[in-house]
Amino acid sequence: MLRQAHTTLAFDTRGRGLLEITRPVSQWAAAGSFTSGLLTLFIRHTSASLLVQENADPEVCADLDRWFARLVPDGDALFRHRDEGPDDMPAHVRSALTAVQLSIPLSEGRLALGTWQGIYLWEHRLRPHRRELALHLIGE
Amino acid sequence: MLRQAHTTLAFDTRGRGLLEITRPVSQWAAAGSFTSGLLTLFIRHTSASLLVQENADPEVCADLDRWFARLVPDGDALFRHRDEGPDDMPAHVRSALTAVQLSIPLSEGRLALGTWQGIYLWEHRLRPHRRELALHLIGE
Amino acid sequence: MLRQAHTTLAFDTRGRGLLEITRPVSQWAAAGSFTSGLLTLFIRHTSASLLVQENADPEVCADLDRWFARLVPDGDALFRHRDEGPDDMPAHVRSALTAVQLSIPLSEGRLALGTWQGIYLWEHRLRPHRRELALHLIGE
Repeated sequence: MLRQAHTTLAFDTRGRGLLEITRPVSQWAAAGSFTSGLLTLFIRHTSASLLVQENADPEVCADLDRWFARLVPDGDALFRHRDEGPDDMPAHVRSALTAVQLSIPLSEGRLALGTWQGIYLWEHRLRPHRRELALHLIGE
Repeated sequence: MLRQAHTTLAFDTRGRGLLEITRPVSQWAAAGSFTSGLLTLFIRHTSASLLVQENADPEVCADLDRWFARLVPDGDALFRHRDEGPDDMPAHVRSALTAVQLSIPLSEGRLALGTWQGIYLWEHRLRPHRRELALHLIGE
Repeated sequence: MLRQAHTTLAFDTRGRGLLEITRPVSQWAAAGSFTSGLLTLFIRHTSASLLVQENADPEVCADLDRWFARLVPDGDALFRHRDEGPDDMPAHVRSALTAVQLSIPLSEGRLALGTWQGIYLWEHRLRPHRRELALHLIGE
């Protein structure tokens, strides 16, 4: 019989960069004893985002962040919104270029992630922040 | 008991830029008297997109649009698809870089948006357009 | 009465570029005899992505791929992750800039795609690959 579950998870980032959250997210999904369904993650911030990426070689995450830092340089003179510092508006742009939300099917009791896929919280601000995710799971 | 609702909402944009649609979207979600669930928005166009961004300082939206206009300049000689003008293909690229769809959990009768988050329709064409969104809500 | 269905579809890409998958995806959705609901597609890879784009003029797809190839050049000296060749890390960046997942409402038995919208699998590696998508459909 179809049913749903939801919760909020909070994560402390270490400043700009990718933080893998596959384990706590999978653990919450598994705790509901759903066999199949759809898990949705939504990040309640506009200067951090969600990403599914390779979790085999840590250089992938470092390269991703370095590439985005070059594309959207801190302190760009184009920006007028600078209240919170030179990394503020670039964080919003990086958020717009990536995902605020992810939905992942669940089958046979497991998230349908590929072999090399991990779920990441991407902090775009230079300083550490506490970030909240709203999670929703529907299935049976 | 789980149930679903769906509708189509149309918005008239004022040309390129971000149009906040948080209120009409929230109002439709609230009208169904769902306590918890998942709301999905899907834009039925390929030259406009959906975005969750900060709605406190309007400079954020202006900066976002200005940054994208610089990254994807109108009239770029790289493009062969120019039938509808110099802003046509850039609009498709901007659409590919952002989101055609957003899903937002609903709990305690409210969308799980963060304090500073608003929902935006991002028009990428220079001229005003009428844009249609398909909305779907499932929950109880 | 609400119910759900899920499956895995595999596609053989022809190397870098966009492959339209609207028909097989729609056919699977239609086979379940759902009248309304929500279809979710999730790609189980980190060097290919999902996209909704115009399917009228094939130049749009070619221009999109050409623009991304210029933005994220193969063999960029910035990258340290180069194990699988000069197109490996660019494929991860292109994946981060686009979508790993799409959710599309279904109403009156049809996907709520706009008139000119098609669903694409975007291969970011130069060589052909077999790509798997997890599909989930919930509705009635």
